[in-house]
Amino acid sequence: MIITLKKNAPAAEVEKLTKSFEEKGLQVNEIKGQDFNVFGLVGDTSRLYERDILANMWVENVQRVSAPYKLANRMFHPEDTIVDVAGIKVGGHEKIVIIGGPCSVEGEDQICRIAQEVSECGADMLRGGAYKPRTSPYAFQGLGYEGILDLVKARELTGLPVVSELMSADKIDEFAEHVDLVQIGARNMQNFDLLKAVGHMNKPVLLKRGMSATIEEWIMSAEYIMANGNPNVILCERGIRTFEKYTRNTMDLAVIPIIKERTHLPIVIDPSHASGDWKLIEPLSLAAIAAGADGLIIEVHDHPSAAWSDGAQSLKPENFQTLIQKAKLVAQAIGREL
Amino acid sequence: MIITLKKNAPAAEVEKLTKSFEEKGLQVNEIKGQDFNVFGLVGDTSRLYERDILANMWVENVQRVSAPYKLANRMFHPEDTIVDVAGIKVGGHEKIVIIGGPCSVEGEDQICRIAQEVSECGADMLRGGAYKPRTSPYAFQGLGYEGILDLVKARELTGLPVVSELMSADKIDEFAEHVDLVQIGARNMQNFDLLKAVGHMNKPVLLKRGMSATIEEWIMSAEYIMANGNPNVILCERGIRTFEKYTRNTMDLAVIPIIKERTHLPIVIDPSHASGDWKLIEPLSLAAIAAGADGLIIEVHDHPSAAWSDGAQSLKPENFQTLIQKAKLVAQAIGREL
Amino acid sequence: MIITLKKNAPAAEVEKLTKSFEEKGLQVNEIKGQDFNVFGLVGDTSRLYERDILANMWVENVQRVSAPYKLANRMFHPEDTIVDVAGIKVGGHEKIVIIGGPCSVEGEDQICRIAQEVSECGADMLRGGAYKPRTSPYAFQGLGYEGILDLVKARELTGLPVVSELMSADKIDEFAEHVDLVQIGARNMQNFDLLKAVGHMNKPVLLKRGMSATIEEWIMSAEYIMANGNPNVILCERGIRTFEKYTRNTMDLAVIPIIKERTHLPIVIDPSHASGDWKLIEPLSLAAIAAGADGLIIEVHDHPSAAWSDGAQSLKPENFQTLIQKAKLVAQAIGREL
Amino acid sequence: MIITLKKNAPAAEVEKLTKSFEEKGLQVNEIKGQDFNVFGLVGDTSRLYERDILANMWVENVQRVSAPYKLANRMFHPEDTIVDVAGIKVGGHEKIVIIGGPCSVEGEDQICRIAQEVSECGADMLRGGAYKPRTSPYAFQGLGYEGILDLVKARELTGLPVVSELMSADKIDEFAEHVDLVQIGARNMQNFDLLKAVGHMNKPVLLKRGMSATIEEWIMSAEYIMANGNPNVILCERGIRTFEKYTRNTMDLAVIPIIKERTHLPIVIDPSHASGDWKLIEPLSLAAIAAGADGLIIEVHDHPSAAWSDGAQSLKPENFQTLIQKAKLVAQAIGREL
Repeated sequence: MIITLKKNAPAAEVEKLTKSFEEKGLQVNEIKGQDFNVFGLVGDTSRLYERDILANMWVENVQRVSAPYKLANRMFHPEDTIVDVAGIKVGGHEKIVIIGGPCSVEGEDQICRIAQEVSECGADMLRGGAYKPRTSPYAFQGLGYEGILDLVKARELTGLPVVSELMSADKIDEFAEHVDLVQIGARNMQNFDLLKAVGHMNKPVLLKRGMSATIEEWIMSAEYIMANGNPNVILCERGIRTFEKYTRNTMDLAVIPIIKERTHLPIVIDPSHASGDWKLIEPLSLAAIAAGADGLIIEVHDHPSAAWSDGAQSLKPENFQTLIQKAKLVAQAIGREL
Repeated sequence: MIITLKKNAPAAEVEKLTKSFEEKGLQVNEIKGQDFNVFGLVGDTSRLYERDILANMWVENVQRVSAPYKLANRMFHPEDTIVDVAGIKVGGHEKIVIIGGPCSVEGEDQICRIAQEVSECGADMLRGGAYKPRTSPYAFQGLGYEGILDLVKARELTGLPVVSELMSADKIDEFAEHVDLVQIGARNMQNFDLLKAVGHMNKPVLLKRGMSATIEEWIMSAEYIMANGNPNVILCERGIRTFEKYTRNTMDLAVIPIIKERTHLPIVIDPSHASGDWKLIEPLSLAAIAAGADGLIIEVHDHPSAAWSDGAQSLKPENFQTLIQKAKLVAQAIGREL
Repeated sequence: MIITLKKNAPAAEVEKLTKSFEEKGLQVNEIKGQDFNVFGLVGDTSRLYERDILANMWVENVQRVSAPYKLANRMFHPEDTIVDVAGIKVGGHEKIVIIGGPCSVEGEDQICRIAQEVSECGADMLRGGAYKPRTSPYAFQGLGYEGILDLVKARELTGLPVVSELMSADKIDEFAEHVDLVQIGARNMQNFDLLKAVGHMNKPVLLKRGMSATIEEWIMSAEYIMANGNPNVILCERGIRTFEKYTRNTMDLAVIPIIKERTHLPIVIDPSHASGDWKLIEPLSLAAIAAGADGLIIEVHDHPSAAWSDGAQSLKPENFQTLIQKAKLVAQAIGREL
Repeated sequence: MIITLKKNAPAAEVEKLTKSFEEKGLQVNEIKGQDFNVFGLVGDTSRLYERDILANMWVENVQRVSAPYKLANRMFHPEDTIVDVAGIKVGGHEKIVIIGGPCSVEGEDQICRIAQEVSECGADMLRGGAYKPRTSPYAFQGLGYEGILDLVKARELTGLPVVSELMSADKIDEFAEHVDLVQIGARNMQNFDLLKAVGHMNKPVLLKRGMSATIEEWIMSAEYIMANGNPNVILCERGIRTFEKYTRNTMDLAVIPIIKERTHLPIVIDPSHASGDWKLIEPLSLAAIAAGADGLIIEVHDHPSAAWSDGAQSLKPENFQTLIQKAKLVAQAIGREL
């Protein structure tokens, strides 16, 4: 960690600050510049927080050199983490996984019907929301536990592991029993109590990036889950909020190589939320594969215009099938399998 | 609601869509343009969701004309809501309120000492975090229940009502018993289960704007609380995330007149989180008062450089006092009292 | 265009407004809602400007239904525009083009050497900046006319058409004589005088997206060039400015299908500026190809760490060659040639 | 400047890099950390550019400690710069200036009529656009030279100095002869050729912040003007582009204390463009005064709904007068005069 002091910092203050770091077991190296003094701290700085140091009025600037995350850090864990979701392996050089299904579970018939369709198209897992985070209190809020049980029936029918969003820690038992991959949604990426709760689960977690989360904050949220005991985290990019209005969000594909360089965790892309428009799903999906994604999670509905939520960004099964065929070719082109 | 269809939409599809709206009790008016067909829906559209309609492949565009919120809407509730926080009135033409205190409660001594200081400076309420949302799992997470009890002691000592952040619904009873104004933090603004939970409380709620929430999404989150039975919501702007790096966030003061025009709820500004830098607190606070804010919430610590969190953005009591003196003059200049 | 009036708009004002539109040759259709009145304007609204209508105090909202651009609009020009750059065809179903070369021309030797290298790797055109837009007045500003002449020599040597950035209308003659594809940089995307000037040129233009330009503003800038007489515009995405700091900008690949749907112009991607980091160029380039880009423009330097500008985002020739080999495979996978 | 090397950087590379800095007259100090090596460069680093150093593959990170601007830097020029605009002083402890007038000059009658009105309301200068940067090529582009001559007549009538936007260097003579304060618009903030050109003028310059420019980039653009010989720069905040859609832009008032801390230049706020809505102008103007602005530039039109541009954000003279009266009181409250 590099700390820049104001040039006019009194010697006594500088000494006090130096001592405070040394007491934390850090070695302090000083550089005197023309207009500033700079300290370099050598040692384990992962428990120091930049903004706390900035509180000293003689400190001009603080810059972290080593990343604030340890467990997720590729530097200390060079080999890829492969997450096992009920037998389906995600990450590393494994087969690219395709997760398909409706935004919301709308009933046993609907989810079983769509589950069979996505399975026939070649999907590896089934997604479906039973608890739905909706901007409006007047919008459909999901079928709840009934929806979870419907997913279980769809799994029995097709064999596909199921992915569903957990919004509240009081449903942990339900998810532990019935869901194969527990999704933490973008709006809850920094719901730290929920992160700690899934950190104690014995189920893999799909952690979506918050809509205005930096890559570092996102990794720190994964670190929360890992630090609480659960190493099985899959990161999921779903677009970030920008000024552009033609798309619902802006998909940030640079995260794929960055996450792979800085962490050892698998990364999956959600082009449905990233774009909000079914016509954009195919090109964005192929782009994600080409950039090295470990998987895709895509909204599929057999009657998008009658869907209870997010129909605008749902693919019909026939388009989902075409997408998978094309995605296979792109995966081959970059030396991976799908 | 205005719905634009693609020019080449088949007549049968147009008829089907028209019928579907009429079945919901809406009146459908059509305008035929050169390149598009447009429908106007007349009636209560608050239960329609734009994106669901977009799912129809013949729909080009959907625009809401009336706001999606009802209970928070000034149109249906023209008089100002005045929220009563343990006797302190917030909103309307009431005295502007000042909420001061440390980021984190660090123990009984600290919070009682600072409470007395902010009280002597003229603050109306005491803030202090007992449960802390921290980006890093390795950072101080707050004293928890002990911190809440420390706040209670500070209240006994000074008479100041206490404000503290609730992060999880399982602490509702604790907050219902001990806290006067329940804060929902920026990171939980769309934690809808938590919003529903505080909607059932009999305590006023301070709802912070999410760091990338639009004004409309923020009002919709207030609507969640109100629709679940709690009308006592105070909105709090704390800066939004932008590309600028000199400040922690960008304070958006236009929200003050906008919130007052569109809703009847009080609005309070948090310049500490908006800027992240104590040197900017005073000018931003005076600006907020001049723009019509109903209150300020400011981080105050007697030893910022030793604070357990957010010292960089904490004012010392002497600077807090100066700020309040200046703020009184600005309040007078615009015809309000503080 | 759809115009929403306030419910309390006086009849006389509504009539006045209606008449003002009818005088412009538009047909006015009215819908009366519960809380609002809505007008639909039928006819050519491309000369109306939303914000001018909003100036009427009785107007609540204005929404454009048809796009504000005509010449660039796919609706009025369904077939793809193929731009010919000194014999190299860009757009439609043509071969995907690769433009490579250094950020700055640093002298005849350097540009000729790199030109030969990129040519051997398979590039179709040579890029090189002679006039450089630099944030600092103290940074290298480009070799100017000498740099242009050096590019000419590199073209003579390799046969590659040359692309270079024009920053000022007073250099038009120089560019008309020597440059094959005239680049308008992101910072000048709304330098309207410069757009008009290149609109009068008889050379194709590469129009970069401004770093905070919406897709619509970007197309409107193309419309400026086209409306002044030059139909040969190639659009170039180079990343937009967001809150994320790990990358220099955020590459927005959704623009590829959107530009192709809304306009008939070719689109090229610049992963070098989009990411600012040479390690990210390859995955982002492959993603762009997979999403349907008509070309790539990539910074290549044989000694990046000695480059006079932008070395951090420059590929070495050997990495550029690898990238092209992989890009060929991805292009094949989606049925295109490169 | 602080340079962080990768831990595995070969000794020979480190030595080469060290030597390259020493050859530039810099002193190089090294700190060896656990996972990284860090260099501190002591000396004049204003001619080094961070991104050029990053091009070295062994460099992990570069951080500038001293600001990249010299002439605008308060550190080297502690006293406030007072800019004289035809006798009106701007900056320091001078009277706060009010600049009012229409978006566009629409003819001699209109500008003379409005000039008299804003003069009677108490404005210090007259604004009016003769050359207009418009998003659409089909929108009114300004009266050009005729508009400049109309402004001259309005000045003769009222004595108010005139402010107008220069869009192209080929109009420099016209502006040098007739305009008192030369405005560089947001879209041209990084039109470096134009910045150099006004740097050679003998007239003060009003430099608007680009809509996605960081504070540092904005100051660097001022530095361009100053480095070319013109020290009379007034900075003008006009809102930045964010995700929020209720306002045209988001006004960033934190810039006022930041610009005053880091530079010695005056700063003026433009609430008209920052909000895009006349109803927001008054609260935002009072906020700007309270935060310490040296002036306001406000769009005023006597018939906003008939204005040829930007009517939606224009105040009527009577509202402008009320605003000035209120602004005087706020100015007094903070110890300044207006």
